[in-house]
Amino acid sequence: MALLNRYGLDRLTEEVDRLWTTASSLLDESVVLFEPPVATCTKICCLALNYVEHAEESGLEVPPSPVLFFKPPSSLTGHNRPVVAPARTRHLEHEVELAVVIGSVTRDLPAERWREAVAGYTVINDMTARDLQLANIDRNVPWDQAKGFDTFAPAGPYLATVDEVPDPQALELRLEVDGQVRQRANTKQMVFGIPQLIADLSDGMTLEPGDLVATGTIAGIAPLQEGDVMRATVAGVGTLVNRVTFRTA
Amino acid sequence: MALLNRYGLDRLTEEVDRLWTTASSLLDESVVLFEPPVATCTKICCLALNYVEHAEESGLEVPPSPVLFFKPPSSLTGHNRPVVAPARTRHLEHEVELAVVIGSVTRDLPAERWREAVAGYTVINDMTARDLQLANIDRNVPWDQAKGFDTFAPAGPYLATVDEVPDPQALELRLEVDGQVRQRANTKQMVFGIPQLIADLSDGMTLEPGDLVATGTIAGIAPLQEGDVMRATVAGVGTLVNRVTFRTA
Repeated sequence: MALLNRYGLDRLTEEVDRLWTTASSLLDESVVLFEPPVATCTKICCLALNYVEHAEESGLEVPPSPVLFFKPPSSLTGHNRPVVAPARTRHLEHEVELAVVIGSVTRDLPAERWREAVAGYTVINDMTARDLQLANIDRNVPWDQAKGFDTFAPAGPYLATVDEVPDPQALELRLEVDGQVRQRANTKQMVFGIPQLIADLSDGMTLEPGDLVATGTIAGIAPLQEGDVMRATVAGVGTLVNRVTFRTA
Repeated sequence: MALLNRYGLDRLTEEVDRLWTTASSLLDESVVLFEPPVATCTKICCLALNYVEHAEESGLEVPPSPVLFFKPPSSLTGHNRPVVAPARTRHLEHEVELAVVIGSVTRDLPAERWREAVAGYTVINDMTARDLQLANIDRNVPWDQAKGFDTFAPAGPYLATVDEVPDPQALELRLEVDGQVRQRANTKQMVFGIPQLIADLSDGMTLEPGDLVATGTIAGIAPLQEGDVMRATVAGVGTLVNRVTFRTA
């Protein structure tokens, strides 16, 4: 930090911007393996049943308040990296979502001040081992493990900053598998909007910089095959590409 | 690290031991506020229904394989610190458990090699807002939030190293509230023992140093009142003390 102050934060930011502009013009984004868009992440807060049509296809009622579950940071992966299903599952499904990236330590924040918590947005694909999830639902027990495996939270490619996304509640979501559209809707259809989600999650729980809030998937979830390429798009935020592979042992 | 090597790791360890011996003789453990026993923690892996009598009191079947859910690192707190129930719950319950502290990056570890993953053990109290949990169970939706609030994972006081706990599968568990025993059983009664838990959790998911595996609670869960003092003991590992308080707004 002392070094940073001596060098000048503005000048450093300028140089990073200049370097990135030069470097990115040389990169082929279709082949480069990206890191996840957050370097520090202590939790991924995922919303269940936050779109009416997805609740319907799941055979569940729309809940009266936000429903949260967690994915661990170890499940994160980046753009162009493989999603690897462990041998214990044979039924993997995609779930495209808008993710809010937390930018500051946030606790008990009223909904109208939600912007104070947010650094930006990214795309997340809430990968799910549906066979394992449904087996646990049948037994009335938690199914976090079915969504918590390594590479089951691909996110990115970039963090779109708040100034790049003027209205996060009016973004088209789309998921394509090998060119075929599987999921398509708009963030304006969320049951609980981002202000209410931030207020509800931070009521009693501290959100930390780099934490992600995955705001829920839309209708159209479906099984994947070995080698399928998923393109998860949130308009104005990015397109996240990941190929599926199944481990056999 | 360069500094550490120049100074000598052995000598440093000796000095830390010496300082601790001096300092701890001056400390009154009954009043000092402890930090959590792990400085880095990326996830708390909790086992549901891992003791038969607790499954019975919960009205659920013993599962055929380990059932996992997550608590976030933000829920951790230490010995002698308050457990604070947010205003949204009025029904808080204790759940004493043995926690395994992960010591190395662990993925796909066979059960017979489980010791390679373990740095030691500590006591954890898996605090639960039972009203919020049961409301979500009624709707067939996840209840992670009911266990994920700040201070809902008190742990400690210490990390007992593996050499201090020769047989983690033969430890008495006990939870007292204001001197009255509420929960009492032995880790030998686990449905799935620690080797199988480590193997199952690491099958497809990376465990990281400082991660905790909370091995499940025992029968006797019950509501708490404002000001109640919980003493959670795992024999040979420690006694974790936390006072309960309810926020009113």
